[in-house]
Amino acid sequence: MKQLINSSGHIRQQLLAGIIYTYNDKLNWQPETGIVTKKIIPENKVVLISGGGCGHEPAHIGYIGENMLDCAVMGAIFEPPTSGEILQAIEQTYNGCGTLLIIKNFEKDLASFLEAERLAKAKGLLVSHVIVDDDCSIESGSFEKRRRGVAGTVFVHKILGAAAAVGHSLDELQILGKQLISQIKTLGVAFSPASPIGMIPQQYELAEDEMYFGIGIHGEPGYRIETMQSSERIAIELVNKLKQQYPRNELNKAAVLVNGLGGIPLLELSIFMNDVQQLLDIEDIEIVYKRMGNFLTAYNTNGLSLTLLTVTEEKWIDYLNAPTDAFGWK
Amino acid sequence: MKQLINSSGHIRQQLLAGIIYTYNDKLNWQPETGIVTKKIIPENKVVLISGGGCGHEPAHIGYIGENMLDCAVMGAIFEPPTSGEILQAIEQTYNGCGTLLIIKNFEKDLASFLEAERLAKAKGLLVSHVIVDDDCSIESGSFEKRRRGVAGTVFVHKILGAAAAVGHSLDELQILGKQLISQIKTLGVAFSPASPIGMIPQQYELAEDEMYFGIGIHGEPGYRIETMQSSERIAIELVNKLKQQYPRNELNKAAVLVNGLGGIPLLELSIFMNDVQQLLDIEDIEIVYKRMGNFLTAYNTNGLSLTLLTVTEEKWIDYLNAPTDAFGWK
Repeated sequence: MKQLINSSGHIRQQLLAGIIYTYNDKLNWQPETGIVTKKIIPENKVVLISGGGCGHEPAHIGYIGENMLDCAVMGAIFEPPTSGEILQAIEQTYNGCGTLLIIKNFEKDLASFLEAERLAKAKGLLVSHVIVDDDCSIESGSFEKRRRGVAGTVFVHKILGAAAAVGHSLDELQILGKQLISQIKTLGVAFSPASPIGMIPQQYELAEDEMYFGIGIHGEPGYRIETMQSSERIAIELVNKLKQQYPRNELNKAAVLVNGLGGIPLLELSIFMNDVQQLLDIEDIEIVYKRMGNFLTAYNTNGLSLTLLTVTEEKWIDYLNAPTDAFGWK
Repeated sequence: MKQLINSSGHIRQQLLAGIIYTYNDKLNWQPETGIVTKKIIPENKVVLISGGGCGHEPAHIGYIGENMLDCAVMGAIFEPPTSGEILQAIEQTYNGCGTLLIIKNFEKDLASFLEAERLAKAKGLLVSHVIVDDDCSIESGSFEKRRRGVAGTVFVHKILGAAAAVGHSLDELQILGKQLISQIKTLGVAFSPASPIGMIPQQYELAEDEMYFGIGIHGEPGYRIETMQSSERIAIELVNKLKQQYPRNELNKAAVLVNGLGGIPLLELSIFMNDVQQLLDIEDIEIVYKRMGNFLTAYNTNGLSLTLLTVTEEKWIDYLNAPTDAFGWK
């Protein structure tokens, strides 16, 4: 498989170096670690930290900035950072107002972040967390919801980031985070899988005319392979599946995120966005905020995810619209 | 080939609709045409218009905004707009200060834009143009430089856009444009070709271990196929080839653009940027501005281009740093 890298063992180091070089007016990085922070950690607000494996760029480094994260801790390809590095990040950015960890709901991510929280608390630091579980894909055998943390995580970065900036306490942010996360639903589809990279093998094959609903952000297989369809038909499937996640009549005001998974051109995302818009229009769902682009990718997967957020509080719109200099979202 | 579209005949219409929906607070579009403009055309500055085929997203619509373009005219996939639509765009945005057309150096683009300019002048309008020819690829037979207009065009949008905003006249902008364009050099490499789309066939094949230097932005073949190499070795080839375009010792202060061609993940662009930075550092070339991302794509080509701009005027740095709300560059 063709990949523009130098060696498998240096991917995290070299990709972070390239990103930090490009944005060195805004970001600090301790080489040899996966810890990236704002140039200056604000003194009078709760510190927001997120992170995960590399391979999801611009997540999460791209969300460090005003009204978003203060720090991102990056692991190896598709592997969360160690609890040791997360603890180091918590200590290093600690300002006495408390620290909120935004964790994507994967077993390994939870283990690392919650262990770091436990260790930090044992040192007397004020630390709490929220767990993002927006993925509505299902296990193909049991039909149980997977509830992984996927692209909707970026809405959480933005809304909690802006709420932290206006002075909400750690407890308030945790409550807001839980409310918010319960309203975020995401579903993905792939037209070709992520290539193997680093220690991660390719996890499924798709024939020339096949696509896969419900795939994951680490190249995981989905719940149903179908014959490739038009953008409009795929939009219908995703919008319908997401709608079903909300109680009847509760989805009347929403934010929408069309997220490219790393290997899909903007031309196709735009055509898909047009189809989504028409469907939401027919459903009489008012779209109060919308974004389209590569936000939380699965390396070079040719595919996309659609996220809906039911806006139950007007303030969330203000938080979404608050300016940011984070390079992945500005 | 898997493509997220609805029908080949509606690609321009539907992709513009999706983009306009996403950015409808900033952009105006006349459906059925390829003419996209700022919401309000400024009254007291030269109007800047560019354009070209679809398939290069976010170019050129993504560069409409403060300190950049006032209007972009989009044709079918990889086809320039008609002179009729360009003329309509010139007339519709005309404010009496004159209009500058920024044209990428392709035969068909020149024919359309220059015919529109001729027609507009015949109507008494003040119109002029600059031709961007930053591509340093060569014909594989004749070794002549191709001099196509490629990713460096975005630097021209930004610098002339910011210069127009501070009140430079049409003549001044044309002179500045020519100076600037002579200092912009770009070279591209592909790891897999653009898929066929619309009326455009796939134009070459690459084996699993091959890459192609000097490819074009419409899926055109390059000048040399080689065995796939490391990011560092590719960076060496591109940096060396670009350096050779400048007279000795003139390349000591530069802006750099690492441009993804639509199908390459940010992880790989970042690793490549790190290699470029190290090479420029060794060469003692001071980098005063840098950008990395998908700026002028070739549909879903897995590949990238590297652009260098020798900064011979300090003002160019100010123009590059002037803020913009253009969604492709902000």
